[in-house]
Amino acid sequence: MNVKHLTDQIISKKSFLCLGLDSDLNKIPKHLLNEVDPIFEFNKLLIDSLNNLIVAVKINTAFYESEGSKGWKTLEKTIAYINSNYPKLFTIADAKRGDIGNTSDRYAQAFFKHMEFDSITVSPYMGSDSVEPFLQYENKNTIILGLTSNKGATDFQIDNDGSFDLFKKVLLKSKDWKNSNNLMYVIGATKSSFLKDVRKIVPDNFLLIPGVGAQGGDLEETFKNGVNKNIGILVNSSRSIIYAGNDKDFLKKSYIEAKRLQAEMNILLDNINA
Amino acid sequence: MNVKHLTDQIISKKSFLCLGLDSDLNKIPKHLLNEVDPIFEFNKLLIDSLNNLIVAVKINTAFYESEGSKGWKTLEKTIAYINSNYPKLFTIADAKRGDIGNTSDRYAQAFFKHMEFDSITVSPYMGSDSVEPFLQYENKNTIILGLTSNKGATDFQIDNDGSFDLFKKVLLKSKDWKNSNNLMYVIGATKSSFLKDVRKIVPDNFLLIPGVGAQGGDLEETFKNGVNKNIGILVNSSRSIIYAGNDKDFLKKSYIEAKRLQAEMNILLDNINA
Repeated sequence: MNVKHLTDQIISKKSFLCLGLDSDLNKIPKHLLNEVDPIFEFNKLLIDSLNNLIVAVKINTAFYESEGSKGWKTLEKTIAYINSNYPKLFTIADAKRGDIGNTSDRYAQAFFKHMEFDSITVSPYMGSDSVEPFLQYENKNTIILGLTSNKGATDFQIDNDGSFDLFKKVLLKSKDWKNSNNLMYVIGATKSSFLKDVRKIVPDNFLLIPGVGAQGGDLEETFKNGVNKNIGILVNSSRSIIYAGNDKDFLKKSYIEAKRLQAEMNILLDNINA
Repeated sequence: MNVKHLTDQIISKKSFLCLGLDSDLNKIPKHLLNEVDPIFEFNKLLIDSLNNLIVAVKINTAFYESEGSKGWKTLEKTIAYINSNYPKLFTIADAKRGDIGNTSDRYAQAFFKHMEFDSITVSPYMGSDSVEPFLQYENKNTIILGLTSNKGATDFQIDNDGSFDLFKKVLLKSKDWKNSNNLMYVIGATKSSFLKDVRKIVPDNFLLIPGVGAQGGDLEETFKNGVNKNIGILVNSSRSIIYAGNDKDFLKKSYIEAKRLQAEMNILLDNINA
């Protein structure tokens, strides 16, 4: 998908909400366990219900891999279902891959060709040649980890001895990589004050922002510090939406939570045009 | 597997060779394409032929994922075959995973419980809580990326402005993580001079060393700088062994290449006891 289409979708839906499908057999409503593929059914129902409130879907591969090849099949069915029925939704494989060139090449094939995701999250630790095999795909986006929302982010991403932060070095260096216009960045909302620094380095790229909701970030501050001329931010919410309920009325509860977030986003988006 | 058993195996087989199964449908001998599962057949034949020359098998997950759920099935069959027939071989899922805690937990389940690998490679970028869910498994090893063998390793792992190298920071910090005795490290052989620095920081842990062979590292120097009281090194070779031939005699050619490496290792191991 072209990034322009993502911005268009954000403006028309008045939402920059990304739905995170961290779908877990132990947490989905019990009545779905009678289905042939409970996780696929759960995902399908959520997407059918929420597609007007969201612009992107992020699928966390770990939750599928932990069910083995059966789970991988569910992953394939889920992305195929979205691409067939909601081709405008921007799809993210939250896979955090990254390896030497010939191996990253295979990961890119897996997610961009075999499953036709629009984007994938990638770890920058191994540098340019571990990321460039993803970047060479036209109209596909590679979302590298900048500053993540977890506690351990302070171990390496932020330098505590006062020298230059690693996550800033990642942002800076990555701008010189081949086809860097296909880059997006993960920037955790729990550190939304850092978003100003991020925007100084990468003013134009989209940011994928986890950590609003369950992880405690503030939406308004995130928006204010992250928005750019193309809007340029996707805010992901996973658990707070998909597990808003866990009974027969779970769809209603997840709709209420997604709608609450989208309504907040609507106000923020209207304000920049006011 | 207990690390003690790995050292015992190295001493009895006179080998610290790890076989990397970067098995690629486009590169395996053509006659195997008639098999129901050509990659599984290729892997099985190689392991049956080489198991006495090697102490570990490293399976590169990208090469399986790129074939979708069918490839994931092949991965499951391969690890099950090794565990049933060669339970002493140390198995490595070369997956380079790593995510926030609850997600790393699922990756650990996928590779340690569902597939029963002995170890997995993990990226350290997200810090302590992205790695500790793997470390909590008893008798399982987590192999974090220290210094990799690719060109891009110099982008972030090594600091070019003279400050403290990131890979050294990773080694140092990781020693304080919970259950850090279950850690091993990836240290590329193309930078074997760095092995001396590595050993100053982590004298006791095993190192997984890729990059001897196709990537150009030197075995003797690697051994000299990396060996510790438990031997403590695994040298991986993938392409130079598995694609030594690509015809009906491929097993013979791969055996010759693996035997050549093992014979070199035999001499190096004998010398330390001389």
